Amino acid sequence: MAVLKKSTLLTLLFSVLVLTASLASATQDLELKQCRHQCRHQGGFDEEQRLQCEQRCEEYVRDKKQREREEREEGYTRRRSREDSEEEEERFEQNNPYVFQDEHFDTSVRTEEGRVHVLRKFTERSKLLKGIENYRVGFLEANPRAFVAPVHFDADVIFFVASGKPTITLLKEKKRETFNLQCGDVLHIPAGTPAYMVNRDDREKLFIVKLINPVSLPGEFEPFYGPGGENPESFYKAFSWEVLKAAFKRDRDEIERLFRQQKRGSITKASREQVEELSRHAESGGAAPIWPFKGETKGPFNLFHNHPVSSNRYGSLFEANPEECKELEDLDLIISFANITKGAMIAPYYNSKATKISFVVNGEGWFEMACPHISSEHGHRRGGGTWQGDKSGQSFQRVSGRLRRGVVFVAPAGHPVTAIASENSNLQILSFEVNGKGNTRYPLAGRKNIVNNMENVAKELAFGVPAREVERIFKSQNEEFFFPGPTQQEEGGRRAYI
Amino acid sequence: MAVLKKSTLLTLLFSVLVLTASLASATQDLELKQCRHQCRHQGGFDEEQRLQCEQRCEEYVRDKKQREREEREEGYTRRRSREDSEEEEERFEQNNPYVFQDEHFDTSVRTEEGRVHVLRKFTERSKLLKGIENYRVGFLEANPRAFVAPVHFDADVIFFVASGKPTITLLKEKKRETFNLQCGDVLHIPAGTPAYMVNRDDREKLFIVKLINPVSLPGEFEPFYGPGGENPESFYKAFSWEVLKAAFKRDRDEIERLFRQQKRGSITKASREQVEELSRHAESGGAAPIWPFKGETKGPFNLFHNHPVSSNRYGSLFEANPEECKELEDLDLIISFANITKGAMIAPYYNSKATKISFVVNGEGWFEMACPHISSEHGHRRGGGTWQGDKSGQSFQRVSGRLRRGVVFVAPAGHPVTAIASENSNLQILSFEVNGKGNTRYPLAGRKNIVNNMENVAKELAFGVPAREVERIFKSQNEEFFFPGPTQQEEGGRRAYI
Amino acid sequence: MAVLKKSTLLTLLFSVLVLTASLASATQDLELKQCRHQCRHQGGFDEEQRLQCEQRCEEYVRDKKQREREEREEGYTRRRSREDSEEEEERFEQNNPYVFQDEHFDTSVRTEEGRVHVLRKFTERSKLLKGIENYRVGFLEANPRAFVAPVHFDADVIFFVASGKPTITLLKEKKRETFNLQCGDVLHIPAGTPAYMVNRDDREKLFIVKLINPVSLPGEFEPFYGPGGENPESFYKAFSWEVLKAAFKRDRDEIERLFRQQKRGSITKASREQVEELSRHAESGGAAPIWPFKGETKGPFNLFHNHPVSSNRYGSLFEANPEECKELEDLDLIISFANITKGAMIAPYYNSKATKISFVVNGEGWFEMACPHISSEHGHRRGGGTWQGDKSGQSFQRVSGRLRRGVVFVAPAGHPVTAIASENSNLQILSFEVNGKGNTRYPLAGRKNIVNNMENVAKELAFGVPAREVERIFKSQNEEFFFPGPTQQEEGGRRAYI
Repeated sequence: MAVLKKSTLLTLLFSVLVLTASLASATQDLELKQCRHQCRHQGGFDEEQRLQCEQRCEEYVRDKKQREREEREEGYTRRRSREDSEEEEERFEQNNPYVFQDEHFDTSVRTEEGRVHVLRKFTERSKLLKGIENYRVGFLEANPRAFVAPVHFDADVIFFVASGKPTITLLKEKKRETFNLQCGDVLHIPAGTPAYMVNRDDREKLFIVKLINPVSLPGEFEPFYGPGGENPESFYKAFSWEVLKAAFKRDRDEIERLFRQQKRGSITKASREQVEELSRHAESGGAAPIWPFKGETKGPFNLFHNHPVSSNRYGSLFEANPEECKELEDLDLIISFANITKGAMIAPYYNSKATKISFVVNGEGWFEMACPHISSEHGHRRGGGTWQGDKSGQSFQRVSGRLRRGVVFVAPAGHPVTAIASENSNLQILSFEVNGKGNTRYPLAGRKNIVNNMENVAKELAFGVPAREVERIFKSQNEEFFFPGPTQQEEGGRRAYI
Repeated sequence: MAVLKKSTLLTLLFSVLVLTASLASATQDLELKQCRHQCRHQGGFDEEQRLQCEQRCEEYVRDKKQREREEREEGYTRRRSREDSEEEEERFEQNNPYVFQDEHFDTSVRTEEGRVHVLRKFTERSKLLKGIENYRVGFLEANPRAFVAPVHFDADVIFFVASGKPTITLLKEKKRETFNLQCGDVLHIPAGTPAYMVNRDDREKLFIVKLINPVSLPGEFEPFYGPGGENPESFYKAFSWEVLKAAFKRDRDEIERLFRQQKRGSITKASREQVEELSRHAESGGAAPIWPFKGETKGPFNLFHNHPVSSNRYGSLFEANPEECKELEDLDLIISFANITKGAMIAPYYNSKATKISFVVNGEGWFEMACPHISSEHGHRRGGGTWQGDKSGQSFQRVSGRLRRGVVFVAPAGHPVTAIASENSNLQILSFEVNGKGNTRYPLAGRKNIVNNMENVAKELAFGVPAREVERIFKSQNEEFFFPGPTQQEEGGRRAYI
Repeated sequence: MAVLKKSTLLTLLFSVLVLTASLASATQDLELKQCRHQCRHQGGFDEEQRLQCEQRCEEYVRDKKQREREEREEGYTRRRSREDSEEEEERFEQNNPYVFQDEHFDTSVRTEEGRVHVLRKFTERSKLLKGIENYRVGFLEANPRAFVAPVHFDADVIFFVASGKPTITLLKEKKRETFNLQCGDVLHIPAGTPAYMVNRDDREKLFIVKLINPVSLPGEFEPFYGPGGENPESFYKAFSWEVLKAAFKRDRDEIERLFRQQKRGSITKASREQVEELSRHAESGGAAPIWPFKGETKGPFNLFHNHPVSSNRYGSLFEANPEECKELEDLDLIISFANITKGAMIAPYYNSKATKISFVVNGEGWFEMACPHISSEHGHRRGGGTWQGDKSGQSFQRVSGRLRRGVVFVAPAGHPVTAIASENSNLQILSFEVNGKGNTRYPLAGRKNIVNNMENVAKELAFGVPAREVERIFKSQNEEFFFPGPTQQEEGGRRAYI
């Protein structure tokens, strides 16, 4: 979005909204389900609270279509009319290499039954993302009963099931592993493992978010379709006939016939019977209530089956990290899922070591990040390899962006960041935090913020005022990690449900 | 070979053949020896089979010179007249960054007694090889009784002894380690270790294949000659006289005299007595029948002293991997040696994680690989950073190349590949598989191919035909990993010996 | 210094000397202290020797100002008049990407109370330094009682305290850690950890050398000031007011007032009481006489509290390495400190694996290094990716440079190198040796040099002369690692004190 003119921006914004709307009906079932799921797993709820919560979920989804239409018409004017002037915001967008939307994705598969989109290489966007150049992000969306053809990648792939009920089969060296997965399940498919999948749900769309970690070429990977025919083209067809005849001990005609039949693409429709057959012998996925002990099994696990690491009425954070899970240790990866209650916000914080790649799974809102690299005057200062301090007026610039389903944003290590849910819907964000080993989240406001932890003398020296004045600001907010958001505060404590 | 015209190609081909011929007599002893060695270690042979096998080795080598002359005159027309038209093949060669021949090597040492050739950086050839940019491949050839001067490299070096009997001395911090090596021995010389070597064989040429892993500059390394004089120039001469005088506590004249004597180059001739002296106190190399226990000794080991991981009458595969061997774990490396019986082939397969760098040690043949990156229409698609699926007609292109002694070829992770021995000679391929930890070889045909491992429903969905039609193709070949090759099959089961 | 003309060189030289002079008075106390410290920790001294040693320290420092003035007037003509002609030396400097001086540093902070300088990215200077592109070097100098404002970096930072008495506080996730450090202490500040510091010494300047290892962007890092105001600008100011109001639950006016007060820059002056308060509850730093057991505590340690790994009257070498220290294992780093007695030298040697980044802490002298990459005829040959051997006349070129406080020089793995102290002062060099695991220092002269370790036959073959002639040169020097330097030898064994 680097050089978009204002008019283009508006056109683009409009088309994004239309697309969002068309996705909406497909995702309503899903949202209801996830909302209820959150109710059941929200820490500290008793039975009655849970029921109320689930009821609100229903009201919420029922009203949503109406709200969405209104909102589209409003055109986000509300946010715009706030303190940030339109010009300022536009400037941020233009200078902001940390947010990615529809136009930054490539379509790698599209059939009648589904599609796969992959975000372009981060380094195509900006050199500031060189630290994550060997990661790619993508998602797969497929219809009920869709079958995804056998394929292997020259990349490790991490799956997160956001909706639908995939039954996935991995062909390992000496055995076949089949898992019935559900919402919240995380699965690592090691590089080169042939896998196929069916959405065993009859009504719900499958939506899978992927983190892709190429093993062969930095940041580049390819799908290899073997079993198949003309579409997707099988890699068998690249061998000469003499080699194929010898390898299979069959005539050319026969071989040719086999590899000519499949023409329907890599995502096709399975019959009810075929779905039944494929899912019958599966182990259930990450359903076990206990986290896999470190060093043990390599099956899937469910992000929501552990207690949230942080939870209050303004949101909850689920996390799987390398210290607990062997699989993630090898990948040096934290996976987290934040469910920010509508109208609420995440405390400004930063990661000490990890760079966070976030994918908005549901809801709307925006994020803000403090960035020392981007300067309206000097362009990308990191490019020059130098940084400058007091004398030369180092300044932090705000990087911000609107969040909605499918938006990806990146928060590098050390960068203070926050996200705010709109007043209309919970904001659900899945994050892959790479370089995760030994990472700490440092809160910058709320109960355990870093300033409260300083000695009084240090507070005075740092701020140039008496310590009690520092404390008046830093000790007012008593919540931890999730806070009431801007609107809620302004309106004197009105709380969104959940 | 990117832009060679057809005429140049033929000229080149001719000169390669002449070179091959001149190497032939030198390598005949070697081949006989290796052939016999294979007989003795081929799994499942009883005593009589072993003797027959060895006898056939002798016949084979006796007839070889004759056959080689004929073959050269034929000029490989046989292969060319097959299904692949000449034009098509030439095109592949032009687009093929995965095969390397004489012209891609630089001469780093050449004296009367031997030579060292090093393949240029992989990334000079193509960005598609960026994943292995920190590896270099080379070989050393030296006369009987040749002495290779003391030298250290800013690189880890892995040696494979293909012929000759090197006695190598490593100067470690507190001791001197000397090993009498033989064919099949693998030795890791850690970066910076001063080493010298003599070929203690009186008649056989020394031939050593090297994998070089620079520690200081990615993909770049240098030899540092210390003990020596004007040729090779000693690095001592770079210091100022005042420093040298202080360091040695000797006069400039004396020092100057010492470093002026050696002028014969880094590979010179030793006398029989000197060879005897150098090899007398050596430990024998990887002769111990038991594989070094993991985590233990760092000495050499012999690739052929373990049972082959796969073996039948069509070939055998020897392997050392990081799971078994501490040394290789640190280097994250698999070393394998495939001996493909003449006329036979390796099953098409792919590596799940490892990228394979192969060096043809003996014999002739060709390889084929399915490659998704190279497209006649779009050039190197990886370069653009995107990949495209069903809609845009992704296709796999065949990459192929002729194999003969000294040819290097690369098979990246995930890429289906096969190699076929000519009808005239066994094809012996040494492979360094980098990024080897946790690698799996997935066979694409033969007894344990990935398709056989799929459920019937998945077969039907993937191929669009009833499962039994899939099985007719995928279950005919009963062999595992090594198969009869194209000619053998065509001629109705004629088998080559061994 | 790549393209400096001779006149510029002289101008530069002059200004460096002036600068050195102005630093001199500030560093005299320090030198006396360090000199005495060395006396107390020099291996093998009895009480009387120690006292004599300390007395000499005092004489040395007393005479120093006088000597320094004379030396400046002399203009290093002594060294120049030796064998290396002026022209030759100038050529080396021009071609030499391994030495860095004042003009290669950027000022990142400068206030009345102190300054921070950071060396530019190594790869900006030369591709030959690509192997260390993810390391940066810097130093901090601050007045007595200077306070360094709370800050975190997107980088791991290693501190070495060269002078002053810093009290440093790290804000960890759940606790605050404060250490009273002293000369010789090494501290690792993990990426993202907020830290602030005060120099609790009332008279001595603080001088800290830093190795910086970015975690997010290769070779790039930024300071993030949180607690603070307008100078240094706080990253809090990058968030929108609506977000800040919600995060802190306070009015905009109040927040604005707090973040407007601090305007004195990131290094300010603390009062005596504030210093007292900040250091009162600290643990003392690396004062414990026992090295932290591996895998245990992550606090600071003192490089001088272990026995030197090598020590004689010509110098001593202190070292902390990854084999002994968990902290350094994670960073794959060796830290060493060489104190070369005035007039003495380090034995020429090379590191087998590690690349050494050295920072001259005190004293003067020069270094010489044998370099195979730089050739007056061919430019940087590594750039071409090829190296050539006997035929093409590979040669080692001398790389050399003058050393004085603040000079940084790099010795890549495998490169023979030596350093020589001037006749006027001990030369004290702090080195960070990256890629340190399993590194060996190979001495090229002195008692355990690599040639002595060779068999006689190998000596004869390598040098082309009888073994006893080789030994006459290589066995004269009986010292180990530190030798009498060029002048001392020339003058028939006159020894410098200590």
